[in-house]
Amino acid sequence: MTPEFIAPVELAKAYRLLNHGPTVLVSASHDGTSNVMAAAWACALDFDPPKVTVVLDKSTRTRALVEASGSFVLQVPTVAQLRLTQAVGSTSLAEDPDKLRRAGVQLFELEGHAGPFVAGCSAWLACRLVPEPHNQQAYDLFIGEVTAAWADTRIFANGHWRFEEAPPEWRSLHHVAGGHFYAIGAAMKAEPEG
Amino acid sequence: MTPEFIAPVELAKAYRLLNHGPTVLVSASHDGTSNVMAAAWACALDFDPPKVTVVLDKSTRTRALVEASGSFVLQVPTVAQLRLTQAVGSTSLAEDPDKLRRAGVQLFELEGHAGPFVAGCSAWLACRLVPEPHNQQAYDLFIGEVTAAWADTRIFANGHWRFEEAPPEWRSLHHVAGGHFYAIGAAMKAEPEG
Repeated sequence: MTPEFIAPVELAKAYRLLNHGPTVLVSASHDGTSNVMAAAWACALDFDPPKVTVVLDKSTRTRALVEASGSFVLQVPTVAQLRLTQAVGSTSLAEDPDKLRRAGVQLFELEGHAGPFVAGCSAWLACRLVPEPHNQQAYDLFIGEVTAAWADTRIFANGHWRFEEAPPEWRSLHHVAGGHFYAIGAAMKAEPEG
Repeated sequence: MTPEFIAPVELAKAYRLLNHGPTVLVSASHDGTSNVMAAAWACALDFDPPKVTVVLDKSTRTRALVEASGSFVLQVPTVAQLRLTQAVGSTSLAEDPDKLRRAGVQLFELEGHAGPFVAGCSAWLACRLVPEPHNQQAYDLFIGEVTAAWADTRIFANGHWRFEEAPPEWRSLHHVAGGHFYAIGAAMKAEPEG
């Protein structure tokens, strides 16, 4: 079942979901265990096929699930998910097995794609791990190839974010430190040289 | 000479200059040639010593300067530099030797640090290239260790951005595609679980 308003994003435009630097949620699942963490250190790496980088500390349970399953999802949380984002970024599944429920995370699946996906986000990128053991060990740096992407069409449509037309609680979150975030702000266009 | 309002940022807090995902300017210099390009694909990689990643396409002149000099600077441009940012991101020094002047770029140096630095930005991170030939060749992915950082104290002070107290033209820029940017927006704090 695909939740209402979720539509595929053309792979060649998937980088646009991350290009403005939002803090993301990283989700992964293996052998019956699912987890979600927040990551400000996620970034586009290539256009087509789209690739991404994400830093996953050795202490995180999500990292182990990514390594075991070979896949993960990056998703873009909204201002409405501020508390959820901070909660999954500051608690560990190892310490609190009830972490996801307590943080208010609802997971869903998309048929034919490795999940899980976090409900209520504005965009989702399903990624296949591109194994790079040296990067993973030395830098905690993981590379993924985006195999499919989706967005909530009320917030991203026709290859463009529509933050300026959507309710403010759907804007992306940009973490600085210690629970201090900024929402994305005003749209602006650089005019070509005259 | 250190321009007015520029103060060092403690290395352990340098990641905060990039954590909210701004589009940056990458500058490098070698053998009398300096260049500046825009990059949305730059990201923090580690806390202390701070490291960063940045994607530098093989077609860019800046990449060659980084490879030859072993150093680069990441700096955070402001809304006031929207046109400059788009200009240095869409023209090549190879095609237009007068690129920097035409884009309105003013460079300065900081004694004891490899530059050049772009005037008018809100923050600067001087980086030493950490050579990783496989990443550079396969992914255009460059890793830098931040050796020193500075910020304009009117926009970043005591380890925190002060966008909400500063004029709107000093906010950071977040590129989506084709000259479409967002400025960073409203500050928000996630309260701890009650």
